[in-house]
Amino acid sequence: MTDRRNFRSDNEAPAHPAILEALVAANRGLASAYAEDEWSRRLDAAFSELFATECRVLPLATGTAANSILLAAMCPPWGAVLCHKAAHIHNDEGGAPEFYTDGAKLIALDGENGRLDPAHLAEVIDGTGVHGVHNVKPAALSLTQATECGTCYRPEQIRALADVAGQRGLAVHMDGARFANAVAFLDCHPADITWRAGVDALSFGLTKNGAIAAEAMVVFDPDRWQEALNRRRKRGGHLLSKMRFVSAQLLAMLENDLWLELAGHANAQARALADGIRASDRAQLKWPCEANEVFIQAEPAVLDALAEQGFGFHRWPGYRDVGRLVTSFATTLDGVGEFLEALEHA
Amino acid sequence: MTDRRNFRSDNEAPAHPAILEALVAANRGLASAYAEDEWSRRLDAAFSELFATECRVLPLATGTAANSILLAAMCPPWGAVLCHKAAHIHNDEGGAPEFYTDGAKLIALDGENGRLDPAHLAEVIDGTGVHGVHNVKPAALSLTQATECGTCYRPEQIRALADVAGQRGLAVHMDGARFANAVAFLDCHPADITWRAGVDALSFGLTKNGAIAAEAMVVFDPDRWQEALNRRRKRGGHLLSKMRFVSAQLLAMLENDLWLELAGHANAQARALADGIRASDRAQLKWPCEANEVFIQAEPAVLDALAEQGFGFHRWPGYRDVGRLVTSFATTLDGVGEFLEALEHA
Amino acid sequence: MTDRRNFRSDNEAPAHPAILEALVAANRGLASAYAEDEWSRRLDAAFSELFATECRVLPLATGTAANSILLAAMCPPWGAVLCHKAAHIHNDEGGAPEFYTDGAKLIALDGENGRLDPAHLAEVIDGTGVHGVHNVKPAALSLTQATECGTCYRPEQIRALADVAGQRGLAVHMDGARFANAVAFLDCHPADITWRAGVDALSFGLTKNGAIAAEAMVVFDPDRWQEALNRRRKRGGHLLSKMRFVSAQLLAMLENDLWLELAGHANAQARALADGIRASDRAQLKWPCEANEVFIQAEPAVLDALAEQGFGFHRWPGYRDVGRLVTSFATTLDGVGEFLEALEHA
Amino acid sequence: MTDRRNFRSDNEAPAHPAILEALVAANRGLASAYAEDEWSRRLDAAFSELFATECRVLPLATGTAANSILLAAMCPPWGAVLCHKAAHIHNDEGGAPEFYTDGAKLIALDGENGRLDPAHLAEVIDGTGVHGVHNVKPAALSLTQATECGTCYRPEQIRALADVAGQRGLAVHMDGARFANAVAFLDCHPADITWRAGVDALSFGLTKNGAIAAEAMVVFDPDRWQEALNRRRKRGGHLLSKMRFVSAQLLAMLENDLWLELAGHANAQARALADGIRASDRAQLKWPCEANEVFIQAEPAVLDALAEQGFGFHRWPGYRDVGRLVTSFATTLDGVGEFLEALEHA
Repeated sequence: MTDRRNFRSDNEAPAHPAILEALVAANRGLASAYAEDEWSRRLDAAFSELFATECRVLPLATGTAANSILLAAMCPPWGAVLCHKAAHIHNDEGGAPEFYTDGAKLIALDGENGRLDPAHLAEVIDGTGVHGVHNVKPAALSLTQATECGTCYRPEQIRALADVAGQRGLAVHMDGARFANAVAFLDCHPADITWRAGVDALSFGLTKNGAIAAEAMVVFDPDRWQEALNRRRKRGGHLLSKMRFVSAQLLAMLENDLWLELAGHANAQARALADGIRASDRAQLKWPCEANEVFIQAEPAVLDALAEQGFGFHRWPGYRDVGRLVTSFATTLDGVGEFLEALEHA
Repeated sequence: MTDRRNFRSDNEAPAHPAILEALVAANRGLASAYAEDEWSRRLDAAFSELFATECRVLPLATGTAANSILLAAMCPPWGAVLCHKAAHIHNDEGGAPEFYTDGAKLIALDGENGRLDPAHLAEVIDGTGVHGVHNVKPAALSLTQATECGTCYRPEQIRALADVAGQRGLAVHMDGARFANAVAFLDCHPADITWRAGVDALSFGLTKNGAIAAEAMVVFDPDRWQEALNRRRKRGGHLLSKMRFVSAQLLAMLENDLWLELAGHANAQARALADGIRASDRAQLKWPCEANEVFIQAEPAVLDALAEQGFGFHRWPGYRDVGRLVTSFATTLDGVGEFLEALEHA
Repeated sequence: MTDRRNFRSDNEAPAHPAILEALVAANRGLASAYAEDEWSRRLDAAFSELFATECRVLPLATGTAANSILLAAMCPPWGAVLCHKAAHIHNDEGGAPEFYTDGAKLIALDGENGRLDPAHLAEVIDGTGVHGVHNVKPAALSLTQATECGTCYRPEQIRALADVAGQRGLAVHMDGARFANAVAFLDCHPADITWRAGVDALSFGLTKNGAIAAEAMVVFDPDRWQEALNRRRKRGGHLLSKMRFVSAQLLAMLENDLWLELAGHANAQARALADGIRASDRAQLKWPCEANEVFIQAEPAVLDALAEQGFGFHRWPGYRDVGRLVTSFATTLDGVGEFLEALEHA
Repeated sequence: MTDRRNFRSDNEAPAHPAILEALVAANRGLASAYAEDEWSRRLDAAFSELFATECRVLPLATGTAANSILLAAMCPPWGAVLCHKAAHIHNDEGGAPEFYTDGAKLIALDGENGRLDPAHLAEVIDGTGVHGVHNVKPAALSLTQATECGTCYRPEQIRALADVAGQRGLAVHMDGARFANAVAFLDCHPADITWRAGVDALSFGLTKNGAIAAEAMVVFDPDRWQEALNRRRKRGGHLLSKMRFVSAQLLAMLENDLWLELAGHANAQARALADGIRASDRAQLKWPCEANEVFIQAEPAVLDALAEQGFGFHRWPGYRDVGRLVTSFATTLDGVGEFLEALEHA
């Protein structure tokens, strides 16, 4: 498979040159270990500015860890995390949230286009936990933004869900593995889909967006959960000794809004793909394309033919006729063109 | 504190230029995610050659995770890990081994110069677990090489301990956060202090030795524990999506034995420090200097004076008159000289 | 509420006189602690005879613990337990299976009348775990017999499900909180719905059936899981020091098939209730009555009226018009008659 | 071994007749399940009266569970529990505290005669946790009363230890498996060695003292830890459905101070044993006899000879020349006399 034809995942993309430059720049002399370095110390201020509110930031290397450690701070072992059936935390993290929470339960809900529905969420929360200690206790809501179906929650949709959760005592977590793509699509302020809409903490992922390994746990109430987060990050083995190299990536991404620029590029490639698919009579979109993922629905034979021609994409679990194409900062319109061309002849 | 005067930890060192070059070289095009890339795929062969036996290697970013995941593969929740009282896994990892093993017990033993004693080890194992399910079950022995006291186990010392463990059904783990420094000091084959001496698995740390974040879980019986290790690495959030950047660091370290060269440099600086301290009448060595750590014993006032002059080192827990100085590939003889000079006037 | 009108749960029943007599009989002199006593030592033989195969039995005091400890032996932390959506282990044990398995995931399936469907089970297993370490690994199937809907699996239904599970490497657990009621209804040999049908281990509950607190973990391959079960029972705090008093209850239940007699009585009362409800034009059965639970479906106002008259039953979660009535060895036809009479006038 | 000659453990004793009578009395009609019954509801008041302060009580069946669940409420997964080296929680519960706390660390301290020393305790707490997240965080102190060496803490000794703990933010737990024996020996008010001396919660064990299986978690600040305790009891499988039979045992023990009478009897037998041993020139007491345990120190051959004559006692781990004899409410002076007689001729 040529790189041009590879739409398997933004995880397969390399690092943006600015990231490597940031590593080189950070590689000067000695620096305090374990996130006591000057780069890590600048994170609170940098993200507070970005989000236009005081927030506390803990850097780490993987999104699975960011999600799991935040959920463990929000949810006791006897608690439940409500999420969408397609949620990455439920399907793709090998049970990491259960591990970090010491056995909390994930309750996975249906919801159109990858989005949870406030009324259904309310119904499930209200129906769970009614028998006291015999049940698990709903403790956290986890939203993925952009969703696993490639759609984005609008600010008011998040607000509605966060209200349902908050009124019932649940904390609100956002899995932002593709947060940048959501902001780029919605053209909103990052605050609009986080703390202003009722989100308590965000796993802000920048790895898929062009970093090597750089994620941030962002907590919007600076005093909340700090001991649990710091202790669990260490205890999980995620307090890197040379953390400056993670933090430097995060700072490089924030510099001149590189994160938004890269996400905008990826979204644009996805939109081009989606436009072409929609225009084709051989395929259609399974879900609206609102970020950097395109879900193509076509005859299985068509998908097979595309795969045989060296196009890389995932066949979506549970569907024989759906494939997922992901774009990144490194995707080019050449590749998009090749795909659409091949689709016409598949 | 100037860098020259900073002997706090090899964790504070930057990355060696070859490591950054390796990252740049690995940053070409797309690559399979989650350790399915070509760099990660080369690790088994590369380490098998280094260790002169077929071994299986799982890369990850922190030593705490490497230790904890290996121990969790070796030790059931109801098991016990035997280690030295000074062991990093016991004192400095925030309970990570207990977390990954789901609550196994660490049994910490005395032992001169940071080394365990085979007879004492045998006695403790034989005295533990005699009441069946009421006791925990000794399941693993963990040795640190080089030890937390800056000394190194000789091959025959490891053999003797591993025999005690093996005859009683325990697996043998080696915490090799400073494994390179031990090999450099002992001037032995890496196999001599690992599988040939009865070690089952090694946490091979290269971060302290000049990488950014690169550790390897090396298992010397290629079929052993593979499912548990792979599952627990994922579940712990340590399966980096862009793992190529970790593996590339590991490969760069092995290339032309860079790992040994850097450790040799660090050791030489430590030896110079130790020689100077031994020669001084104001201080002495608490433990023999056999790797890249020097434990200076001096009047507390002398240590205070050195600290006030901007020399960075840790006051050793439990001792008022002991300080730990650590050297790295980035330490220079200038810094060593400044320290020894200052010592004479402190 | 008078006892006669209380159909809330067989857990509210007292102990059968034979159980108290057994305690008195066991209360002679000293006895080895921690299940080393003569009563506990007789369990293997007694249950092996009952099940017509060599089995290994560990007594304990609660069904939640029996289920959870067995599942923890079958399922690694990164595993999944497949069960029915109504399963007690999923809904009513406060997350105990997650606790004992150290965070395994319960995957709850739909299925008519409380029973799982083999084809659907196969589909879910085959669709789970396809992405290796990113997914959880299906490791155990848990069947409830009698089911939470008051129905019973026929031997061939269990066989079909166990085949699906076994062919895919899953172990088969049976939650037998009301196992006796199932055997009494099916009029089969206990072996027919356990090991002969592919069940690997049974949580045999006798508390609901007239004991004070007496449950047995029955493993049909005597060498399997013994260390894990013994260690986890102790580690969970379920190795009672004076276990003779639990084992004596179990033995008393087996004596002269008291367990079957009591279950038969309970079933007969339930049948009488069910017959009356079916004959009434004010209510109907939500699910077939095949054990000692009756699910009445009626106008909410009818159910309200019955409750106001002092009849005790649970409104079934998720249904406004369904109530659950449970009978026990202590239920009398008087109470049944009162209920049916009241139903006619409600 | 005849019962008269069996001094192995008070766990081997039968139940006192009053306990069985209480079970029979509680076995009338239906009762709410899961500790909602009238017996369980009376516990708070009954123990509050006993302790002369408002306390909250959760009944359960084993002391291991009581200890572990209380410690889990007091100590986060990243915390440490300080206890004596001989502590039951450290040596004899198969890792249950580590299981329930999700991997907290037990730090075991030396201390003469089974008692902790306040100065040493302060030193260890102050020396632990100094490196923040890299260390575990001291969170709870656990005292055993009577101690595992058969001695009792005086009220002022508990006060001194609790002060050290409390000033450093640790909660204070008391393992009262033989609490009754301590009260009987000290002839004090139960409050004097619990809340008045700074103890936050007590595992009050009545099983060894003559019950079948009856333990109480007693919390002296009624609002503290209630959710965690209730949730963890359920989650551990320790919320018995027919809890009335546990609670009835507890109430029977409190009635007319039966608990004190039985403990006083056991203590008197131990004292007679101890007096005889002290008077003998063939043996001596290893530790002062202050409750119902006697530690005989004698030539191994003497202990062997006694064992050969059918006397039951434990050889104490770590000592070739020490045996532990335990008395109970069922011990008779006949047995004591036989032992002392045999000792003279051994």
